[in-house]
Amino acid sequence: MPLARLSVPSHLSPQRVRALADAVHQALVSTCDVPPDDRFQLVTRFEAGAMILDPRFPGVERTADACIVEITFLGGRTPEKKRALYRQAVAHAVAAGFRADDVMIALTENAPIDWSLGRGEAYAGHAPA
Amino acid sequence: MPLARLSVPSHLSPQRVRALADAVHQALVSTCDVPPDDRFQLVTRFEAGAMILDPRFPGVERTADACIVEITFLGGRTPEKKRALYRQAVAHAVAAGFRADDVMIALTENAPIDWSLGRGEAYAGHAPA
Amino acid sequence: MPLARLSVPSHLSPQRVRALADAVHQALVSTCDVPPDDRFQLVTRFEAGAMILDPRFPGVERTADACIVEITFLGGRTPEKKRALYRQAVAHAVAAGFRADDVMIALTENAPIDWSLGRGEAYAGHAPA
Repeated sequence: MPLARLSVPSHLSPQRVRALADAVHQALVSTCDVPPDDRFQLVTRFEAGAMILDPRFPGVERTADACIVEITFLGGRTPEKKRALYRQAVAHAVAAGFRADDVMIALTENAPIDWSLGRGEAYAGHAPA
Repeated sequence: MPLARLSVPSHLSPQRVRALADAVHQALVSTCDVPPDDRFQLVTRFEAGAMILDPRFPGVERTADACIVEITFLGGRTPEKKRALYRQAVAHAVAAGFRADDVMIALTENAPIDWSLGRGEAYAGHAPA
Repeated sequence: MPLARLSVPSHLSPQRVRALADAVHQALVSTCDVPPDDRFQLVTRFEAGAMILDPRFPGVERTADACIVEITFLGGRTPEKKRALYRQAVAHAVAAGFRADDVMIALTENAPIDWSLGRGEAYAGHAPA
């Protein structure tokens, strides 16, 4: 409840992809008050040519290993929390062998009523502080 | 003009996937004033390991059949309509053989001006009541 | 920073898919003040049956070549800019051989703080005028 979509090039090993997924989730837990077991991630692999990513905008250097992480989660996180999320996720990814310039993150927000985590029931939780 | 993305495990039969797609659309029609022919759905199958879904959060029991339904639609639906949408979609899915805990739904909202349904024209409809 | 997802039927040639991607990006540049090198696109191919698209809603005629373009970008563009975006993207697509009714576009907005384009840093740019 965050829901994260990881778009990765198909040549990445399963171990590296899993490390990126772990990096993103650990960062959500440590910076955005996400419960450790509140983990929902979808990984899609893209063949060469199916990820059309500028190699330099805005002043970085992307390689063929560049990945995109899209996270949909509850609105209300502060800019400080979002900055910490980016910092932590990329620090974990770098520790797992990624280049810092190869991790792009985009956030989309919604509201608690916009989630049903099962049983046909709206999620009963609250927006983050 | 809802646009629904169904993320399903690759072992599900085409019949079950179609039943889930039907369940979601029927629920949108019956609870959220979506015209019956206003149907736009994208189905993506994921190999084992590419859907990283906590098996229990928040107090449900997910199996390897768990699916995620993401719907982008016009903002303005009431909490009551969204609750009815979840209830109906999952009731239809259960009737088609799914476990209620295996259907997760996430909503994202936008505005009428955010849709072009063809011909390069902005959608001329109105937000839902 | 727009991030565009192109969902296309698997039978389209790589040349046509690339032409659609080019059409969308050129339109973003010419109508929505997107820098030419601010290009991030993900292309997913769908087998027959995995794109469930009504062939006529709302008064168009979709063929098996129909594509869906989802764009996430900064909020704040005016209705006029969005209308110009639709018009331009589809005009370019038509010039590349697409039928105008076969291109559907959906926009989702977020904020500058919702993007990290690399290095674990929040994007330092500003919202569009």
